Amino acid sequence: MADPQRPITIAFDVMGSDHGPAELVKGAAALTLDTPNIHALLVGDQAVIGQALSQTRYNAERLAVHHAPTFVAMTEKPSAALEEKPLASIKVAAELVARGDAEALVSAGNTGACVLACARSFKLIPGVKRAALATVYPTQAVHGSKSDPFSLILDVGATVDATADDLVSFAVMGAAYARIISKNPNPTVALLSNGTEAQKGPPRVVEANQRLRSVSGLQFIGNVEGVDIPRGTADVVVCDGFVGNVCLKMLEGVHETVLELAKYAYKEKLLWRAGLAMLSSGFERIKEVTDWEQYGGAPILGFDRLFIKAHGRSKARAIANAGKVAAKAVSNQLAHVIEQGLQAPA
Amino acid sequence: MADPQRPITIAFDVMGSDHGPAELVKGAAALTLDTPNIHALLVGDQAVIGQALSQTRYNAERLAVHHAPTFVAMTEKPSAALEEKPLASIKVAAELVARGDAEALVSAGNTGACVLACARSFKLIPGVKRAALATVYPTQAVHGSKSDPFSLILDVGATVDATADDLVSFAVMGAAYARIISKNPNPTVALLSNGTEAQKGPPRVVEANQRLRSVSGLQFIGNVEGVDIPRGTADVVVCDGFVGNVCLKMLEGVHETVLELAKYAYKEKLLWRAGLAMLSSGFERIKEVTDWEQYGGAPILGFDRLFIKAHGRSKARAIANAGKVAAKAVSNQLAHVIEQGLQAPA
Repeated sequence: MADPQRPITIAFDVMGSDHGPAELVKGAAALTLDTPNIHALLVGDQAVIGQALSQTRYNAERLAVHHAPTFVAMTEKPSAALEEKPLASIKVAAELVARGDAEALVSAGNTGACVLACARSFKLIPGVKRAALATVYPTQAVHGSKSDPFSLILDVGATVDATADDLVSFAVMGAAYARIISKNPNPTVALLSNGTEAQKGPPRVVEANQRLRSVSGLQFIGNVEGVDIPRGTADVVVCDGFVGNVCLKMLEGVHETVLELAKYAYKEKLLWRAGLAMLSSGFERIKEVTDWEQYGGAPILGFDRLFIKAHGRSKARAIANAGKVAAKAVSNQLAHVIEQGLQAPA
Repeated sequence: MADPQRPITIAFDVMGSDHGPAELVKGAAALTLDTPNIHALLVGDQAVIGQALSQTRYNAERLAVHHAPTFVAMTEKPSAALEEKPLASIKVAAELVARGDAEALVSAGNTGACVLACARSFKLIPGVKRAALATVYPTQAVHGSKSDPFSLILDVGATVDATADDLVSFAVMGAAYARIISKNPNPTVALLSNGTEAQKGPPRVVEANQRLRSVSGLQFIGNVEGVDIPRGTADVVVCDGFVGNVCLKMLEGVHETVLELAKYAYKEKLLWRAGLAMLSSGFERIKEVTDWEQYGGAPILGFDRLFIKAHGRSKARAIANAGKVAAKAVSNQLAHVIEQGLQAPA
């Protein structure tokens, strides 16, 4: 299905991230040198981009710049900002992708503005009613043919009041993404609930459980519980954006909390204190290793065009990874695979 | 308000726990010796209770036994089991409490059967539409005048599809409980959402946020996010039973997961391995220290009678603690305080 030779253009909204446009420009520039088929379309302030390009190597035949005079800052309210700034980089970039000048979009800017710009410019895949933001997170178990110590969880914030319909399409979308990106030909998919029994949970979850059992081509393993999230019982965990966001943010706080709790409980005991000191750089490294930005960022699934949200703190390497993941999804026709998955006869 | 001298009878369903009736009998027996005002009413198999009593000290003037010939096992389906066993100990005990033979109920048995038996025998407090299961969990921050390293979270599983009405009453109930049990005269209460802004979350959460701002006598601090759960940003965290159950079970898995992740990531590095080894008994102790069973178990709030669910693995000391907490709630008129809190003018 995939043609690794076909040239694929990825648009990069280079503005509005924590470390400034130069990191995004550097990441995209590296892709034009390292990968044979990726073209980069940099969207943002032309002067700023020119300045950044003057300080990095790139393949000029596979890099283009599209000027956007303004951008949405991290702290701005998404809808108001997009209203006031019709030429904001994320909006311009999404429109360029929608009209076919590029095939996917990467940004490290304001998440809400990204989601909104995509929703306004892209079309939903037939069969999908609402989009989902997905992310990988660290697990005990390993997954896929690359033995990634990560599972995918969706939705983590795009659709806070998902219906049973939405949950079913999230499951199909997450499985398609895991299949393509994690080289996991038959990913296990579970529904997050307050018990493993099929009848557990609010009505939307109970109904989704029923319907997922009969989606062909999907390896649905039923409900999992909160404890199964860190364990990594399933390759793909499906929930509404409200629950998913709470879980994701709890996971982000775990490192900090365990260290603090350990300090609190055992400040009296020298042996434990020494153990903690020896481990502290280890804990730092856990945080680093489990940081999802290295794994290409968080895709918004459900639109005809792929958007990948890199973390606001992304450096050039994370941006290059996001671009590679986007290109891989495009060359493997992610949107088409999702559409087929949703149309599959029961 | 509280009269510490008034005798208070607590019913103990001694059947169906992981460690058998003797641990519950021992815990209740200890209370009749150690506390001046608590009477224990033991409900369960008379012969088994008699045998356990013959092996422990107790004050016979403050201990009574009520025979119940059967009980609900941990693995049974709650509604079917209560149907088939009208004389199951939890059902008999709840009825004894409902008719006034005791003022509160403690059990370490099947949680679902406990919730159901209470719902069938007890009355909802005026103003409360649905009950909530609350539990304390370990936090970084300390709370109340005893500097407990715990927050209270509710609901964690009684009401999976809570309305805005329910969330408001959960907030009032949780605050009343924290005030009485944690000696925290003015507990901070927060609503769990996917962002701190008042308009974040599904409609029920947005509406509850609006309404909680005008509940007098409640120190509502607005929305908190997932990361605020382990941090302990609020003394009381309010959510529906679906989200709360997922969060609670994630917290339960944290200890296990962090150790496993650390092992996975750093098995190569000797220093880290040594640090982990030195800390391993420390991690075990964290688990122990943060085990909520020591803090009296999980109350079901919202009924005219208090029920406290001790952990299935509870030993005698945990049962005695649950009995003390129940007596403290009764002598401080918890149900009355909740009723007043819900009637308070905005």
